[in-house]
Amino acid sequence: METIKRTKIIDVLKRTDFDTVVNVRGWVRTKRGSKNVIFIALNDGSTINNVQIVADTEAFDAELVKDITTGACLSVNGALVQSQGSGQVVEIQAKEIEILGTCGSDFPMQKKGQSFEYMRQYAHMRLRTNTFGAVFRIRHNMAMAIHHYFHEHGFFYFHTPIITASDCEGAGQMFQVTTKNLYDLKKDENGKIDYSDDFFGKPTSLTVSGQLEGELGATSLGAIYTFGPTFRAENSNTPRHLAEFWMIEPEVAFNDITDNMDLAEDFLKYCIQWAFDNCQDDLNFLNKMIDNTLIDRLHFVLKNEFVRLSYSEGIEILDQAVKAGKKFEFPIYWGVDLASEHERYLVEEHFKRPVILTDYPKEIKAFYMKLNEDGKTVRAMDVLFPQIGEIIGGSEREADYDKLQTRIQEMDLPMKDMWWYLDTRKYGTCPHSGFGLGFERLILFVTGMQNIRDVIPFPRTPKNADF
Amino acid sequence: METIKRTKIIDVLKRTDFDTVVNVRGWVRTKRGSKNVIFIALNDGSTINNVQIVADTEAFDAELVKDITTGACLSVNGALVQSQGSGQVVEIQAKEIEILGTCGSDFPMQKKGQSFEYMRQYAHMRLRTNTFGAVFRIRHNMAMAIHHYFHEHGFFYFHTPIITASDCEGAGQMFQVTTKNLYDLKKDENGKIDYSDDFFGKPTSLTVSGQLEGELGATSLGAIYTFGPTFRAENSNTPRHLAEFWMIEPEVAFNDITDNMDLAEDFLKYCIQWAFDNCQDDLNFLNKMIDNTLIDRLHFVLKNEFVRLSYSEGIEILDQAVKAGKKFEFPIYWGVDLASEHERYLVEEHFKRPVILTDYPKEIKAFYMKLNEDGKTVRAMDVLFPQIGEIIGGSEREADYDKLQTRIQEMDLPMKDMWWYLDTRKYGTCPHSGFGLGFERLILFVTGMQNIRDVIPFPRTPKNADF
Repeated sequence: METIKRTKIIDVLKRTDFDTVVNVRGWVRTKRGSKNVIFIALNDGSTINNVQIVADTEAFDAELVKDITTGACLSVNGALVQSQGSGQVVEIQAKEIEILGTCGSDFPMQKKGQSFEYMRQYAHMRLRTNTFGAVFRIRHNMAMAIHHYFHEHGFFYFHTPIITASDCEGAGQMFQVTTKNLYDLKKDENGKIDYSDDFFGKPTSLTVSGQLEGELGATSLGAIYTFGPTFRAENSNTPRHLAEFWMIEPEVAFNDITDNMDLAEDFLKYCIQWAFDNCQDDLNFLNKMIDNTLIDRLHFVLKNEFVRLSYSEGIEILDQAVKAGKKFEFPIYWGVDLASEHERYLVEEHFKRPVILTDYPKEIKAFYMKLNEDGKTVRAMDVLFPQIGEIIGGSEREADYDKLQTRIQEMDLPMKDMWWYLDTRKYGTCPHSGFGLGFERLILFVTGMQNIRDVIPFPRTPKNADF
Repeated sequence: METIKRTKIIDVLKRTDFDTVVNVRGWVRTKRGSKNVIFIALNDGSTINNVQIVADTEAFDAELVKDITTGACLSVNGALVQSQGSGQVVEIQAKEIEILGTCGSDFPMQKKGQSFEYMRQYAHMRLRTNTFGAVFRIRHNMAMAIHHYFHEHGFFYFHTPIITASDCEGAGQMFQVTTKNLYDLKKDENGKIDYSDDFFGKPTSLTVSGQLEGELGATSLGAIYTFGPTFRAENSNTPRHLAEFWMIEPEVAFNDITDNMDLAEDFLKYCIQWAFDNCQDDLNFLNKMIDNTLIDRLHFVLKNEFVRLSYSEGIEILDQAVKAGKKFEFPIYWGVDLASEHERYLVEEHFKRPVILTDYPKEIKAFYMKLNEDGKTVRAMDVLFPQIGEIIGGSEREADYDKLQTRIQEMDLPMKDMWWYLDTRKYGTCPHSGFGLGFERLILFVTGMQNIRDVIPFPRTPKNADF
């Protein structure tokens, strides 16, 4: 076979220099045809679109033609020709075909229309389908949007530790990390496990949030963001929970809660605009095949200014709705942690715009949030989206050393583990704010997928750590 | 104090609209002056450069002036004026000063010239020094260079799992991850720990490499890269080892070993060019204060074509050098794993260019590397740099199902755990290649720092998981 430099299918499909001989490589999605001519839909992952290969059967060995099956990997030399069909502008008239890898009929992605649940068992092969190709190209693009946004705005990407010896955040159950021999656990005279010979010399676990370390970055470099894996050992078998997920946590010195809201709104709109600018084909596919309200919902967020109101005002509106006959599963009263149904009511029915709720009761929020002058509420903010409810949670941080210490005591947190965090308030403290965005929540929103296990390549959930 | 929108110091220093009143906020690096006038060097982390604040003491309260100490956080309103000194073009004539946070004389970064070892104990505060500000701004920029490079070249950022149930790579000792109650370890009748009630229902650990899963991505999406944390539980207390570090692993379908070398060289040069284009001030500082051969070394890599030769040819050259009187600590013979001294000899003394060595003995390389026709060597490649030796290791992968299975058997790896990896060779296999780059190695190279603990914000090493 003649050696010709490979062209990616995404690039071939844009070309109009007909009659040029090109080389494409990829996997067979479908083969159809007659005795005299076959049509191969070839995909190489660079785009959701296949290039059509047209081959006159008499020009090729019958054995080779037989081996061109769904899932097989081919290298094709052929001439670019104007497509006769209605789909693409260009197709390839095959001159030479080499089969790089055959594929038997036991290929797990053989059939169309298999369930997502079935495909999860073959997470290593579902990547070769239209849906998951689209999802993971969009996932890539959302990561790029995030890095571009923060870089353009003068933030520094800051790597907070994954293994941690502190459980300050208290955001959930943690995975223990150890090198101890579990068959020979040394204990002290009181029966306590002796961690002095563990790798770090003390108990350690996987981080539930990089925020506290992120604040160290922000109060020295000015503006940082984290983007890394985060862990929760909660035994939640739901379409919304992962034991391992990726989180983005910007943190900015000198930002107050209003700056923080401005940042969150601008940032989310930038990401969605990026999807429109860079993922049009994949979005169109998902809108057609997965959720035909997807593109409308993305436009809804993009074109509307987010409504900003306090938690107390939100409760008032929900209360009125209940009085007017609206039924919720969970009760509404001041002090309650809002459920998704409440959040979605505010966004989808009442305001018909994305909503930012602020100034939550301190009892339902974390210790590090800045206390308001009322002594009852904190400068928290949650950004609420249609369909998924809370997409971002954040706050202005308590910058006052004494107030922060009081909160730590009130909440009975291990003060001695927090000396380094308290130091930021001791040495040149400053107002600062930040928020957290669960990356997979964003991907659910931008793809219209329903199950969080379908927007991360290899999900980790209770009893499942395959691949 | 009048409310004026804050300007970052990096932006203020570029302005020449003198007499405009601006607001800057940041931390005091130094204060000096006389009875009548004080000069404050203020830094906000956006750049290594301070802005000079000039304040007439009589215009300010004496108590306030006293509280302006190293480490204190200030908000300053003042007029942009042309600088009288030799350093910056612009300085600020203070009109109003607010102290956002005072800083006592126990501030750990009070003194200049403290050792890196001392500063490591205060990793949360070292971020406020010139050196670490420069290092972490460069770290950010190298991450941006990496994402930009791959995005521009059509790669997809692919998140491989952190928690894994397989130990296929065999790259080193692993950290165990568990939710089991270590005080109540259930065992079966044979005395084996029962993992059925562990979170994942089986033993799991932290990943040592995302490559195998990366290959799943590449053989469906075409070209992917990983960029995530990676773990080694080796008890190595050296300036070159971390228990938690970040790794970049591109993987490309249809690339052979030559494409792989082209990619590695082009990629590394792009990153270094990025540093020159985006980090000039920080590089100049590090070149002046840390390592005055730094910038020359970066130019050395950028301007030279990398030499490519086989491991066998490399051994021959080293052998000749020994015969000519060169003394190495470790012996040279065909089959030996090269030491850093050997690699650096080839780069710094023999070729005086970066080197890519290929075709290593299969015994010293991983099971997944493509076997050459000689049956003795594999299509591996190591990129060798001045000062640090190996910066990249990679290979063309074995695409043949039977050959791969043979290697797995020869190396006695757990075949049953690898069904999903073998599936890529079973269903439409294709030639593909990739490599791994330790992110902190790159940062060491680009900053001239000597200890890997000083190029990651919060290093994890034996007995150390602080912050």
